[in-house]
Amino acid sequence: MNFYTRKWVKPEDLNAHGTLFGGRLLAWIDEEAAIYAIIQLGTLSCVTKYMSEINFVSSARQGDIIELGIKAVVFGHTSLTLTCEVRNKITQKTILTIDKIVFVSVDDSGKPVKHGRTEITYTDEWLRE
Amino acid sequence: MNFYTRKWVKPEDLNAHGTLFGGRLLAWIDEEAAIYAIIQLGTLSCVTKYMSEINFVSSARQGDIIELGIKAVVFGHTSLTLTCEVRNKITQKTILTIDKIVFVSVDDSGKPVKHGRTEITYTDEWLRE
Amino acid sequence: MNFYTRKWVKPEDLNAHGTLFGGRLLAWIDEEAAIYAIIQLGTLSCVTKYMSEINFVSSARQGDIIELGIKAVVFGHTSLTLTCEVRNKITQKTILTIDKIVFVSVDDSGKPVKHGRTEITYTDEWLRE
Amino acid sequence: MNFYTRKWVKPEDLNAHGTLFGGRLLAWIDEEAAIYAIIQLGTLSCVTKYMSEINFVSSARQGDIIELGIKAVVFGHTSLTLTCEVRNKITQKTILTIDKIVFVSVDDSGKPVKHGRTEITYTDEWLRE
Amino acid sequence: MNFYTRKWVKPEDLNAHGTLFGGRLLAWIDEEAAIYAIIQLGTLSCVTKYMSEINFVSSARQGDIIELGIKAVVFGHTSLTLTCEVRNKITQKTILTIDKIVFVSVDDSGKPVKHGRTEITYTDEWLRE
Amino acid sequence: MNFYTRKWVKPEDLNAHGTLFGGRLLAWIDEEAAIYAIIQLGTLSCVTKYMSEINFVSSARQGDIIELGIKAVVFGHTSLTLTCEVRNKITQKTILTIDKIVFVSVDDSGKPVKHGRTEITYTDEWLRE
Repeated sequence: MNFYTRKWVKPEDLNAHGTLFGGRLLAWIDEEAAIYAIIQLGTLSCVTKYMSEINFVSSARQGDIIELGIKAVVFGHTSLTLTCEVRNKITQKTILTIDKIVFVSVDDSGKPVKHGRTEITYTDEWLRE
Repeated sequence: MNFYTRKWVKPEDLNAHGTLFGGRLLAWIDEEAAIYAIIQLGTLSCVTKYMSEINFVSSARQGDIIELGIKAVVFGHTSLTLTCEVRNKITQKTILTIDKIVFVSVDDSGKPVKHGRTEITYTDEWLRE
Repeated sequence: MNFYTRKWVKPEDLNAHGTLFGGRLLAWIDEEAAIYAIIQLGTLSCVTKYMSEINFVSSARQGDIIELGIKAVVFGHTSLTLTCEVRNKITQKTILTIDKIVFVSVDDSGKPVKHGRTEITYTDEWLRE
Repeated sequence: MNFYTRKWVKPEDLNAHGTLFGGRLLAWIDEEAAIYAIIQLGTLSCVTKYMSEINFVSSARQGDIIELGIKAVVFGHTSLTLTCEVRNKITQKTILTIDKIVFVSVDDSGKPVKHGRTEITYTDEWLRE
Repeated sequence: MNFYTRKWVKPEDLNAHGTLFGGRLLAWIDEEAAIYAIIQLGTLSCVTKYMSEINFVSSARQGDIIELGIKAVVFGHTSLTLTCEVRNKITQKTILTIDKIVFVSVDDSGKPVKHGRTEITYTDEWLRE
Repeated sequence: MNFYTRKWVKPEDLNAHGTLFGGRLLAWIDEEAAIYAIIQLGTLSCVTKYMSEINFVSSARQGDIIELGIKAVVFGHTSLTLTCEVRNKITQKTILTIDKIVFVSVDDSGKPVKHGRTEITYTDEWLRE
């Protein structure tokens, strides 16, 4: 699994307890998963259909740096299933896991259409120095 | 199930498709569920531990009014299980459902503690005219 | 008066004193009143024209849960007058009151048009268990 | 009346009609009035107590530049009364007026205290070229 | 240089150190500079092309009031060069300076076009009492 | 240079032209650079001191996916100099470049202190599959 996007937990991201607001974290994950799906399917026309259970393993605090990891696990005809892990960048401690996030490729009327992809593509990959 | 909080979908809530950003919706639900749990458990010291699978049934668009419904379904010793439905306020069409959202009552060190509640209380209820 | 929407006061809602930012509260009220007016008038084409004086009775702090109450008080030919109270959900202490918020039903050019409503409708009401 | 702060209406500031969200505008005014009061009273310890009626004269659209004008009109023993006008920077058309916004100087426990100011001070004024 | 727009540093503006988030400050400056350019060039069709080096001279904290100063320094054929200073409104201490911010007037296809302005205009100026 | 964090341009990120608001982009960069500096210097106690000139090469639109690249170029005794490039994830077209962003390691009173690092460390690196 690759971890790309990082977030720095700021006061605007906290709940009333002073820890990372779970809703903010879910919003970050949804955006990151959408980005991953768009790149893999090569189309903006895909929508979130389903998320499997979400385990909140540990919390995060102001000043923590977290990183979001996503990986494609199943390519269906019209769907793409991703798995997700969020962890603390410094301690590598898991914060949250989601087994399955399913995106579906759709046409203009919102009906599922075949996306034609069968495996992870790295056409967007850059060389690491 | 009672539906209290309502949202009016504005441009700041949209994804790049021009429909309601799923992450925004999840953030709204997490806040509403936390409010419900705090009221039922009578304590701010409770945290989200788990969400069961999430079904994105239909979408919402700019100008739509949506309402969030939450209901307590199981009172454990240290936990509280809620169920959630989000729907379009005008058409009553379901937008999203989550079977179980589990909150746990915790002490200052974050360890689960008994909350002593066994059923839905309505001490906070107001009279409807 | 019914109280629907609830808010959980988070760090992002505070002013520089660490209490609820009044402007944030006014923004919440304006959205809630617009939602109420849209439902009562059955049209999105209505705009805020006037708010009577606003009394800031007490403040709110991080972690407080507040609830917003709105009620229709006068149905004019083209206008709808609402009254508003915001209070602390737990203590029931009043935070703010606004006697009158006036919405006007408008056509595409922004001119007032008759809305045809004469009393509060509850077609949108759900059964409370 | 001096007009200092300016805002550029962006998509994030719009309501579901595509015009400037009234709640956003009220939040901008509340912040600008607080800044003005803090400067005049020379203390951060002052809170909004009251706003007189608000007239929404005209609307604003995406791309509009608006400017906020505030002026002190009455110095009480513990209070300061401001008046406010918001207008379109380019057309100079009035968008909103509020006759009175009252701030009160308070001590640490929130009780009103004398602020000792009796007139507008310009110690903070800069030279215009 | 004139200082118009003011900001009151609130919790939502802080970085994880509890001081003003530099990115928030840069966003405020970019908006203020765009407003200044639009007014001077008399057109919305202008874009930021370049910022010279940025010196972060001092920081700001929650509750601070800051003011943004912009001034036009060079009128090119298609460009306008501004200079910027941000300072603490109360202490007048400099927070940040940017020597040059360059805007370019563009046509619908994004190509530079002559703007026809050669000096600072004050047609938008109001009388100070 | 490695590109980690990605952003999906949504309506809330647009300026009044409907293109990516430059101020939003600068805020994203400042956060990403701070995260990079914190990881390299192994301390939260570092602050942005300087940014060299910024070139806005091209723009971005709603729905675009962009990626932020940062790389350490000079390790001083108390400072760390980074370089930055932002590009469109799909087309790989450059959106913005900043030659130098300088962070300084500071003690509690804000004075520069030696950070003891002399080269890029990859202790935080994960294996790519």
